[in-house]
Amino acid sequence: MLTPEIVEFLNHGTRTGMLAFTAGDGRPLAAPVWFLVEDGALVLNTGSGTAKGKAIARDPRVCLVVDLAEPPYAFVQVQGVAETSEDPAELLRTATALGGRYMGADRAEEFGRRNAVPGELVVRIRPTKVVAQLDVAA
Amino acid sequence: MLTPEIVEFLNHGTRTGMLAFTAGDGRPLAAPVWFLVEDGALVLNTGSGTAKGKAIARDPRVCLVVDLAEPPYAFVQVQGVAETSEDPAELLRTATALGGRYMGADRAEEFGRRNAVPGELVVRIRPTKVVAQLDVAA
Repeated sequence: MLTPEIVEFLNHGTRTGMLAFTAGDGRPLAAPVWFLVEDGALVLNTGSGTAKGKAIARDPRVCLVVDLAEPPYAFVQVQGVAETSEDPAELLRTATALGGRYMGADRAEEFGRRNAVPGELVVRIRPTKVVAQLDVAA
Repeated sequence: MLTPEIVEFLNHGTRTGMLAFTAGDGRPLAAPVWFLVEDGALVLNTGSGTAKGKAIARDPRVCLVVDLAEPPYAFVQVQGVAETSEDPAELLRTATALGGRYMGADRAEEFGRRNAVPGELVVRIRPTKVVAQLDVAA
């Protein structure tokens, strides 16, 4: 579902993902996340006690959207199901990769160590539907 | 709730909003939107037949998030309740202002005329909670 063109869009620079999830009372929320594209899935880290972590534990259905916020405007919306892991090695690996993507290679290890701590989760979103519009305002 | 510092962040350049809403089956969705800040509320246009429009008709609770997707990273999350209007004059006024903000003053009227058509709604989100983190990765 994640075509090469879509993966390139998702991986461009430090584009963040906006993760939509559902609060305990059913209201919709969103929050920005750092993410990676790996093996056709989207990978991020979050704390098990955060609003995002608790929402995923209640209902694993999520949506991650990435956009280009200038002309010609564009976006990719990935609807999917989240799986979580607390595996320490996987947590350190992904936290380091996320640090590298978003803060630069020279700070990857620093952010990996800082973020791969107990209580943090690896979240892997497997796409169920992908909507891409790569030239909105043409 | 929208302090001057937050309004300045929201109004910066062509930053888009990511609108979180709930699909008919209860799964969370998000989509990018053009928006304005007016009188302490967030204003956008959408079609009454779109996923966003139908979601708001079912449940007016929404969340709009704006972020800075580069170091130092930052975001403003506005949770609120949406009201809609089909008033033609208000629709034309807001569609024109949105066109001006996002496509430039010279294209404001063009986008206003194009987007202020029957079936389109003015959506006004009145904030109920605002979360701002203006220096995430420091």
